[in-house]
Amino acid sequence: VHGARPLLDALQLTKLSSTVPFAAFEIYQGDYKGKTVTVVTNGKDARFNVDNVGTTPGALSAFYAIHETQPDLVINAGTAGGFKSKGAAIGDAFISTVCAHHDRRIPIPGFVPYGKGTHPSVPTKNLVELLSFKSGVVTTGNSLDHTEMDDILMAENDASVKDMEAAAVAYVAELANVPFFALKVVTDIVDGDRPTTEEFLENLGTAAKSLQDKIPKVIDFVTGRLISEL
Amino acid sequence: VHGARPLLDALQLTKLSSTVPFAAFEIYQGDYKGKTVTVVTNGKDARFNVDNVGTTPGALSAFYAIHETQPDLVINAGTAGGFKSKGAAIGDAFISTVCAHHDRRIPIPGFVPYGKGTHPSVPTKNLVELLSFKSGVVTTGNSLDHTEMDDILMAENDASVKDMEAAAVAYVAELANVPFFALKVVTDIVDGDRPTTEEFLENLGTAAKSLQDKIPKVIDFVTGRLISEL
Repeated sequence: VHGARPLLDALQLTKLSSTVPFAAFEIYQGDYKGKTVTVVTNGKDARFNVDNVGTTPGALSAFYAIHETQPDLVINAGTAGGFKSKGAAIGDAFISTVCAHHDRRIPIPGFVPYGKGTHPSVPTKNLVELLSFKSGVVTTGNSLDHTEMDDILMAENDASVKDMEAAAVAYVAELANVPFFALKVVTDIVDGDRPTTEEFLENLGTAAKSLQDKIPKVIDFVTGRLISEL
Repeated sequence: VHGARPLLDALQLTKLSSTVPFAAFEIYQGDYKGKTVTVVTNGKDARFNVDNVGTTPGALSAFYAIHETQPDLVINAGTAGGFKSKGAAIGDAFISTVCAHHDRRIPIPGFVPYGKGTHPSVPTKNLVELLSFKSGVVTTGNSLDHTEMDDILMAENDASVKDMEAAAVAYVAELANVPFFALKVVTDIVDGDRPTTEEFLENLGTAAKSLQDKIPKVIDFVTGRLISEL
């Protein structure tokens, strides 16, 4: 979660002390409508003084939070690029159907599908309908931009949105056998005319705010429902 | 460590039970010349039935092993591609001077150096001389192959060898403030004429064996020496 303060306040969560003090991530927890809600953020990189982004911090914080709290459901919430060819527009909220990698090319038999990952999300038909979200494949890579090779592999993944963490979090959730989905708000159009960085920076603030508004709605929806009812 | 069995036998290490049963990595420990030596492997992916490779499993197993064992030194041992322009030949053993990423392009001010990472290794002048190793920058990416963009960024990193884990392990070691270096044996020539996969598969067996031979020599060298004496 990027810029999580409003969310933490809205849910009235309390910061837990980390059992791994060297790691940057921050973990917050509280009771919300009779359920325990935990929010973990990747924190900041102490040396470079920027938010930790990408698959490594994403996997580490997911690993830590799942191990510490043994959740019934993991949601990876964040911003993403959207493909207009898949109906994405800036500000849209997407729920993942599948998360896959597009920057792990390992052309050895057996390793190609491992590299892609293709980690499933739980079905969320009712959630998507009720909140008027869109749904599709989230393709994950460690770069904000995308090369021609990335474009080919993102198309192979049949991606609706492109982010930098979801498949890594989905990987850890799958390892731990915990139901998972990603919630991504679109900041920029991947297959559009404008440079990613420019469009991303222009819309990040609005998208982050929109995410802060949507996450509590998603939590309201999932609390008290069975996974099979999502 | 790929194919670690001979090493585990040579060092007479015992498998520890994992405190995170859902994770695939395996951890072995024992006394060796009065020091505690721990070996952690990434294990196999249960769904795809291949060895876990890349930055995510590398970071997770490093995180776990460092947290569990609080080591004085972390060594990431494995195979790598070598740059002949930097004097690398197949079978060479390289010790890292620095580990950096070449597939994390985040063209936003402040995030560019974060993406590269550029994690330092401890100086190992004496080790490199005594064992007739080479030394240089290890550049890390999640793909076995390399695109033109990768080539540009690997050259910017001034890389001598290219692997798929070192910078992620170095990142976690740096977070935990534990001295670190990587030991990489060259399986293929990155800037040569032959396709990476073909050359890699041809030489993997020999390189893995060579690594099994070199790791105990490195452990012999580092045990009983101060970090400043490496």
